[in-house]
Amino acid sequence: MKGIVVQKYGGTSVKDTRRIMNAACRVVSYRKKGYDMVVVVSALGDTTDELIELSRQITEEPVEREMDMLLSTGEQISIALLAMAIHKLGYDAISFTGTQVGIVTDTSHTKARIIGMSSDRIKRALKKGKIVIVAGFQGQNQEQDITTLGRGGSDMTAVALAKVLRAKVCEIYTDVDGVYTADPRVVSGARKLDKISYDEMLELASLGAQVMQARSIEVAKKFNIPIHVRSSLSGKEGTWITKEERKMEEVLVSGVTANKGEAKVTICAVPDKPGLASKIFTTIAKADINVDMIIQNVSRTGRTDLSFTVPTSDLAKVRRVAEAISKKVGAKGVMYDKDIAKVSVVGVGMRSHTGVAAKMFGALAEKKVNIGMISTSEIKISCVVKKSHAAKAVQAIHKKFQLGKKK
Amino acid sequence: MKGIVVQKYGGTSVKDTRRIMNAACRVVSYRKKGYDMVVVVSALGDTTDELIELSRQITEEPVEREMDMLLSTGEQISIALLAMAIHKLGYDAISFTGTQVGIVTDTSHTKARIIGMSSDRIKRALKKGKIVIVAGFQGQNQEQDITTLGRGGSDMTAVALAKVLRAKVCEIYTDVDGVYTADPRVVSGARKLDKISYDEMLELASLGAQVMQARSIEVAKKFNIPIHVRSSLSGKEGTWITKEERKMEEVLVSGVTANKGEAKVTICAVPDKPGLASKIFTTIAKADINVDMIIQNVSRTGRTDLSFTVPTSDLAKVRRVAEAISKKVGAKGVMYDKDIAKVSVVGVGMRSHTGVAAKMFGALAEKKVNIGMISTSEIKISCVVKKSHAAKAVQAIHKKFQLGKKK
Repeated sequence: MKGIVVQKYGGTSVKDTRRIMNAACRVVSYRKKGYDMVVVVSALGDTTDELIELSRQITEEPVEREMDMLLSTGEQISIALLAMAIHKLGYDAISFTGTQVGIVTDTSHTKARIIGMSSDRIKRALKKGKIVIVAGFQGQNQEQDITTLGRGGSDMTAVALAKVLRAKVCEIYTDVDGVYTADPRVVSGARKLDKISYDEMLELASLGAQVMQARSIEVAKKFNIPIHVRSSLSGKEGTWITKEERKMEEVLVSGVTANKGEAKVTICAVPDKPGLASKIFTTIAKADINVDMIIQNVSRTGRTDLSFTVPTSDLAKVRRVAEAISKKVGAKGVMYDKDIAKVSVVGVGMRSHTGVAAKMFGALAEKKVNIGMISTSEIKISCVVKKSHAAKAVQAIHKKFQLGKKK
Repeated sequence: MKGIVVQKYGGTSVKDTRRIMNAACRVVSYRKKGYDMVVVVSALGDTTDELIELSRQITEEPVEREMDMLLSTGEQISIALLAMAIHKLGYDAISFTGTQVGIVTDTSHTKARIIGMSSDRIKRALKKGKIVIVAGFQGQNQEQDITTLGRGGSDMTAVALAKVLRAKVCEIYTDVDGVYTADPRVVSGARKLDKISYDEMLELASLGAQVMQARSIEVAKKFNIPIHVRSSLSGKEGTWITKEERKMEEVLVSGVTANKGEAKVTICAVPDKPGLASKIFTTIAKADINVDMIIQNVSRTGRTDLSFTVPTSDLAKVRRVAEAISKKVGAKGVMYDKDIAKVSVVGVGMRSHTGVAAKMFGALAEKKVNIGMISTSEIKISCVVKKSHAAKAVQAIHKKFQLGKKK
């Protein structure tokens, strides 16, 4: 055998039984070339949303343990069907749930983290000549409860498997050709990137480019696992995510994104005492809420407004926590704004070039787009704008940085 | 606490989220009365059929291990939703899959038998005051593969749990009021029985009265577990299945059933040598096919026709096995007849009364219903008739034995 290839098929790549047969053919074609195959599958197309809808009919706030019990069935259906499809093609396949394959996570239901993984059962199956199919998105905590890894968690399953199995490559199959300089549905001149660094991809993923889960890219970076993001509908090369190369630095900006999945929360008129911000964000972190941008306005009259953004899906949880905190610290109340989008530019070139921020703000100003909040990292600049301005902003920035031109 | 009650809700009792809430209310009402509750749930309404249809789109003969992987998701969805519904009502519930609860089965996929069960995890949860929800129909074999217990397998889960937990009663919730003297949709005068013996119920179940799985009644009988079959849509008492009582023997016949789920297989002109029948049925049993009635016609010219009935669902498997056997033993081929129904009368009274068969055959003759095969047991007589004659036959027999009148 030539080594192990890990492939991950996302929901759109297995959205119906025809697509599942399609995926099975691709898996078998690799197998014929002499690779040991380990395949991670997401839930069929809309299954996850349908299951969420079922739970909503019962309660607005389902217990998270039971939500994981419910949602993990989606991937279990996919692995069984894909294994059947591979058998149909005359090859031996065996499917495993997260529990069966020994994916151990922490107890943080609905967004658990993998803390360990056994590869024994997979290796035994590979040795017997079987193609191994693993349910993405799920694991089991140490109390033997089923957990899920959060949206996009199947990517994490694939990368973690690629790591423990020392796979040659981890292929991420999706319904787009690869990673683009901007969302092609928004920017007509958007261009597919042949290569991108882990760091850039990490920022893009965190910023709402929904190609791959951010945490899984971190892990791929840490263990230097080559990722190939490509389409399950064509044979074309996609985008390789790899270590940063010298050449990449010539490129100022790799991509521009808009994330509409966040909301802005403002705790108003917080007494300006040392330690209060720490107390507030510790409490929020304990409730397992991911805070993204944080802005503290300049204090006047001993009080200050504290704003931060959170995923809209966490808003119900945030509401409870934030309002309790607001009372506790003697603030004047909490305000919410769901009408926001976070527009960002990403590029390792920023490290060595200045003026990227000024250029970005200039592009927005020319289109009369107001900036609400700003945050920056070494290779990223994000601005919060009105949701309705998101497309206009992305187009203006894409043009300003001439991202459509191959460099 | 007053002891443990095991309840099992069948597919129609949890066919949608409204029914699930309904089941949750019933569970909680028992809990309020002071019972420790263990609840077994089937898959939502048509889920199992939908999953089977998905697999059919891929292959006509799915690997059975993967079929179990697929089908077991149905119950997993139900337990999560029921647990959420109970939480919504303000009570603490926890759901377990067959694997989690330690239901160990043999390796016979799609119709596995329970060989062991641990009650530790359930008892721990009950001690913490939780209502325990268990996925019916499924277990795990010793290779840690998911198995399913065959159609109606949730009944087995419930009865087995009632046994290991020493439950006071095992309630089987369905969409009918209890066990009837005949199918009320076929016989207008059919009457609900207040009580029936395990043996009678066992025969009725084997004969196609789809109220409860036959194997589960065997287990209930063996361990003397009181079963209460009742409707999830009303508060009415249903039918108690218990040990045979003196009084029951006064009743000649308890019920009449028709089973349209079988087909007749005839291996033609088998050479009439000793040991051939044994060889044939050993091979069929090894293929995990349940043979029901067997008829061997009188031998002429050294050859004999061998007929038997099997569940229609096993017909594809039977075809392969029977045709191979036919060649091997030098028979003249295999014929199939799906156009049959098995009409049966059941009653412990037959033990002490004669003439039941004559009366039954008389009723059929009066209606000009031809009898194809006959088989009898101590408390049962079955006749195979044409499928189109089934309803007429059942009506005639029900009337002849005056089953509609309370005795």
